[in-house]
Amino acid sequence: MSPQLPPFKHFFELRVYYEDTDMGGVVFYANYLKFMERGRTEWLRALGVEQAELAAQTQRAFMVTQLDIRYVKPARLDDLLQIESQVTRMGRASLHFYQTICRQGELLTQSNIRVCCVETVNMRVVAIPDAVRSKFAVTIQE
Amino acid sequence: MSPQLPPFKHFFELRVYYEDTDMGGVVFYANYLKFMERGRTEWLRALGVEQAELAAQTQRAFMVTQLDIRYVKPARLDDLLQIESQVTRMGRASLHFYQTICRQGELLTQSNIRVCCVETVNMRVVAIPDAVRSKFAVTIQE
Amino acid sequence: MSPQLPPFKHFFELRVYYEDTDMGGVVFYANYLKFMERGRTEWLRALGVEQAELAAQTQRAFMVTQLDIRYVKPARLDDLLQIESQVTRMGRASLHFYQTICRQGELLTQSNIRVCCVETVNMRVVAIPDAVRSKFAVTIQE
Amino acid sequence: MSPQLPPFKHFFELRVYYEDTDMGGVVFYANYLKFMERGRTEWLRALGVEQAELAAQTQRAFMVTQLDIRYVKPARLDDLLQIESQVTRMGRASLHFYQTICRQGELLTQSNIRVCCVETVNMRVVAIPDAVRSKFAVTIQE
Repeated sequence: MSPQLPPFKHFFELRVYYEDTDMGGVVFYANYLKFMERGRTEWLRALGVEQAELAAQTQRAFMVTQLDIRYVKPARLDDLLQIESQVTRMGRASLHFYQTICRQGELLTQSNIRVCCVETVNMRVVAIPDAVRSKFAVTIQE
Repeated sequence: MSPQLPPFKHFFELRVYYEDTDMGGVVFYANYLKFMERGRTEWLRALGVEQAELAAQTQRAFMVTQLDIRYVKPARLDDLLQIESQVTRMGRASLHFYQTICRQGELLTQSNIRVCCVETVNMRVVAIPDAVRSKFAVTIQE
Repeated sequence: MSPQLPPFKHFFELRVYYEDTDMGGVVFYANYLKFMERGRTEWLRALGVEQAELAAQTQRAFMVTQLDIRYVKPARLDDLLQIESQVTRMGRASLHFYQTICRQGELLTQSNIRVCCVETVNMRVVAIPDAVRSKFAVTIQE
Repeated sequence: MSPQLPPFKHFFELRVYYEDTDMGGVVFYANYLKFMERGRTEWLRALGVEQAELAAQTQRAFMVTQLDIRYVKPARLDDLLQIESQVTRMGRASLHFYQTICRQGELLTQSNIRVCCVETVNMRVVAIPDAVRSKFAVTIQE
């Protein structure tokens, strides 16, 4: 009996629109961060965590506290992009992601992102709620 | 023998992300225009017109020259929105759209938009290329 | 003794950056709405109304409920734009603005915008607070 | 006779508007990259380099190829922010920046950014034009 593999990696696909490009004819450098945020949000949703609900019910949110990104090749209008997200470490209050953006197997960007759990009312860092933590646990490869 | 109904209306669905909201907790008023642009782009794509190709091959683009919009109810994070697009008139160089944004049947915005065909090099208004015009023709109800 | 003229019109100047443009080489059509919002915000600030304070102290915010805009000529990277804002009518809960965007005297866009006062907690329309209303009063030409 | 100090650091001030915030009540994490881009653009302008002109006359542009950023404290609506930019290294085709965003002396973000000179037509990395390079030279502390 083969157990179902845990979701180590999350895939999400999106389209590049006019709004994402700049006069250089390529995606504006800040907008790749929007794409990665969509990827993390869809990964949370796939685990059963809706962030609007999380904020309303537990006054908790996730906030990016650090990131690095390497821009390898530019994305362009009409491109269909694949966002791949992976949790590389989970702390008491933080999550570390590794995310890439690809276009049909061609690497466009790669990024390490640290996200912290904060109280929405004062942005102070707090422990990730247990109910959320247990959902994350299955996604981490040991 | 029943003929296939022409695609009078185009539907497109999208998700609201953090990037779309503002500190009021709802979608920022300019971002509904991004959503409508995605709707028109997907409608063009459904008709076989890719805008990146159109620009590269014919030096033509579509530019919004006028619009009105009524904001009825606000969209929020995690909402799944339906963009409905309809061409209400086609001129020599212009297209008139009627677009709505709904959330599960609830009307959020309604809008009239006039789009003109322009030369990309100087933004001057020119006739819609015949190859494109013939694709639009089937979408207009008479 | 000549009385000081009331500030019927508010002027605000801003610069076009890469983030504002799209691959057409001009400002993306939704971004003119950002420019106009900056103009209205600076006009409020000039009257002594800070919106962050307004939200924190009175749980009130201004929300756009309707607008029309005509795009006459496109703005480009590095352009210095003049946003001109004028209140054309004040109701119990609403403000009507007429706003233009110009580049050294050349008209780029013109727009009519209706803004309503809402409770931040539920987005319901409410009367403009008296303290704010009295500040607006001087800006309306009769 | 005291020589004029070279402009090792460039300062630029900007205001936070509604468009910059998200439903967390703070500036959306990608938008700090917009602020830093404005800072670099104004620094170029202060040196006499207008990017629209650069693109039109030499078919050259600057493209970010790598960055890291640490988000120390969040910026909020109505905040007046100071962007400080410094060139830390200049290569044949690249510039390395160190940029911070502060609010009245309080550090909000700090970032290292590598920018490359590219041909606009194909985004290939090329040497920084001599006319531009000589303007940069004075800004580098040795």
